[in-house]
Amino acid sequence: MEISERMKSMEFSPIRKFYPYQVEAEKRGIKIYNFNIGQPDIETPKGFMERIKGYKGEVLEYLPSQGLPELLEKIKAYYKKHGMDYETRDILITNGGSEGLMAVFSSIFNEGDEVIIPEPFYTNYKIFLSYFGAKIVPIKSHAEEGYHYGDREKIEKLITGKTKAILVNSPSNPTGNVLTKEEMELILEIGREHSLYVISDEVYREFVYDDAKVSSFGVSQKGYEDNLIIIDSISKRFSACGARIGMVITKNEAVKEAVMHMLQARLSAPALEQVGACFLYELPDEYYEEVRKTYEKRRDIAYSEIIKIPDVICKKPRGSFYITIKLPVKDAEAFQMFMLKDFDYNKETIMFAPCKGFYETKGRGLREIRIAYVLNEESIKKGMEILRRGLLAYKERKEV
Amino acid sequence: MEISERMKSMEFSPIRKFYPYQVEAEKRGIKIYNFNIGQPDIETPKGFMERIKGYKGEVLEYLPSQGLPELLEKIKAYYKKHGMDYETRDILITNGGSEGLMAVFSSIFNEGDEVIIPEPFYTNYKIFLSYFGAKIVPIKSHAEEGYHYGDREKIEKLITGKTKAILVNSPSNPTGNVLTKEEMELILEIGREHSLYVISDEVYREFVYDDAKVSSFGVSQKGYEDNLIIIDSISKRFSACGARIGMVITKNEAVKEAVMHMLQARLSAPALEQVGACFLYELPDEYYEEVRKTYEKRRDIAYSEIIKIPDVICKKPRGSFYITIKLPVKDAEAFQMFMLKDFDYNKETIMFAPCKGFYETKGRGLREIRIAYVLNEESIKKGMEILRRGLLAYKERKEV
Repeated sequence: MEISERMKSMEFSPIRKFYPYQVEAEKRGIKIYNFNIGQPDIETPKGFMERIKGYKGEVLEYLPSQGLPELLEKIKAYYKKHGMDYETRDILITNGGSEGLMAVFSSIFNEGDEVIIPEPFYTNYKIFLSYFGAKIVPIKSHAEEGYHYGDREKIEKLITGKTKAILVNSPSNPTGNVLTKEEMELILEIGREHSLYVISDEVYREFVYDDAKVSSFGVSQKGYEDNLIIIDSISKRFSACGARIGMVITKNEAVKEAVMHMLQARLSAPALEQVGACFLYELPDEYYEEVRKTYEKRRDIAYSEIIKIPDVICKKPRGSFYITIKLPVKDAEAFQMFMLKDFDYNKETIMFAPCKGFYETKGRGLREIRIAYVLNEESIKKGMEILRRGLLAYKERKEV
Repeated sequence: MEISERMKSMEFSPIRKFYPYQVEAEKRGIKIYNFNIGQPDIETPKGFMERIKGYKGEVLEYLPSQGLPELLEKIKAYYKKHGMDYETRDILITNGGSEGLMAVFSSIFNEGDEVIIPEPFYTNYKIFLSYFGAKIVPIKSHAEEGYHYGDREKIEKLITGKTKAILVNSPSNPTGNVLTKEEMELILEIGREHSLYVISDEVYREFVYDDAKVSSFGVSQKGYEDNLIIIDSISKRFSACGARIGMVITKNEAVKEAVMHMLQARLSAPALEQVGACFLYELPDEYYEEVRKTYEKRRDIAYSEIIKIPDVICKKPRGSFYITIKLPVKDAEAFQMFMLKDFDYNKETIMFAPCKGFYETKGRGLREIRIAYVLNEESIKKGMEILRRGLLAYKERKEV
């Protein structure tokens, strides 16, 4: 008896690889700052739990597979506020954005289909795509260019007879890159010209800084209704990762039908969290603005500390809560191991996400790391100082 | 742009087909008894919500992908009580049993693999298996034999070089068939002899009647640790379908690793419901006994009413909360349509699940329907009376 081929070829998440060394370091009394995972530290709005506490049902039944009608209405209103005319029938609630991705992938990909994705990308796309035999064709983006990829030539040259979709994530995990409205429209245009789906993962939508505006591919959907599929989630926006409420939004009738098939098969998304999520979509604009400011300030601090480090390559990212940095090391995973096993600064060290797993192209991303600024300002300052000192110490050991 | 081949070939759930006629009937003032869906009416134990209300976290974070450690401990103790030595590391919490099935299927099936499943079976197996290109090879069971299938010859003759697993569901949805301990051991033995996974979907485990005992393939796992994979869920056991808490339980290390890959990719199961589920596993034996008695009584009433109906074929089922009945009609879907469009008894009618969708073999199951006895005793009596009268009226119209 053997496991499936797809799972045999799946690489372990680096988080798992480092875990035993993390435990060892903690045993030695080392404090670790966790910049490695995208778990926000911002408080979940209290009304979420209050709404759930008010739930009066005697039987916790399946909700409709598409989602709680009240929540669909609230999400529709939220999109309306941002200038998008989606109807409740265009919105399908999923078990987090993850299930949304899976439902969409199952609905459109056949074995051997190609999907164009800017690289580096959110690593879990790989496993869900592997289920349906879809092949990732990466748009290569570079630290030196701030991971820019919104370019017709860069994208079009990758299109083949097997291309079925372009999948983008703006603001991006892991790079923080934010597409402009013009770039979004360009991608939609390419999608329409070549009859491709454009899957837009917008779970970090509100987290944009400087001159970047909160936006969505949905704003420009007119004429591209059949191409565009949006993935969204309450996890990051409202700091409610544990709730597992995401959604698929599209006007493509055939895709909607196919996604609904999968949602009916899995019966329902979590009921209580859908009740709580209704509250979240009633939050005033000030809520979003406050969270945005918190992350922007942190981004500023992280960035200003990072550029003090000699020989790193890092362009100021305009969105999400990640910064990707190219380090003066050959292998960021080995450097992370060093930081856990052989280094501390005043009994403290840091964890980050080595970027290898965010790349499809073998050999790319080895020198890059992703920092999630989901800790307070003081910790970010300390963490980046530890990173700087760690790199110095690593260099001295000539392990660079 | 086209949707995927797998979704093109997916048939719609009959529930959806009948929905507009249901709405129409209700508009005409007809009361409908819903025997068509497996949504229990039994109250969710109040402690579930109380435990959630006591949740004090300020940030609703992702839980560990494997599940809340406290819940894993409680589930381990529950299995221990039933004579099974599973460790917390053998238990993986999923978004309902549905995600558990998907995670297991992704872990073991390659395109073209065959899985042997007694027919009729839980219809949603089809869609999740279609994701991974696995082919269903049905063991044909029959209403006349009480859907018995636990027979070496019946099973072994279906094994080919492509067979990868046997998937069973006891107590069964839709038939109510319950495997004996000997039959379970026979299936494990066949699995070991032919190097097959035995996937046992045991979400109705507690709902067994007459001389049937609460049991599990896990009780006999010794020597079959690598073969056996159990799917379980709190949905039916504790009437908590909306919580979406299920689990995969196995001692097969490679399968555990592969399932964990998928669970890590989708990050976490719902957090609050895992907190609530801890309470459910603290319920005393009396809870299970009371629920069991409630369903057994209903089964008795439903069965005794059903066998009064002329020309139906129905053996008394010993488990789950379903009865499958072979009707004296050519097409149970057409009969359901009649019951909604052209029939009422004192302004009342019933819905049931026509069994076509529970079959893989084309042309089988057309005369059968599934009744879910998830309504109170009075409603069951009335409902079966309506069924009897409906059949008479249908026969008079010579539409049989």
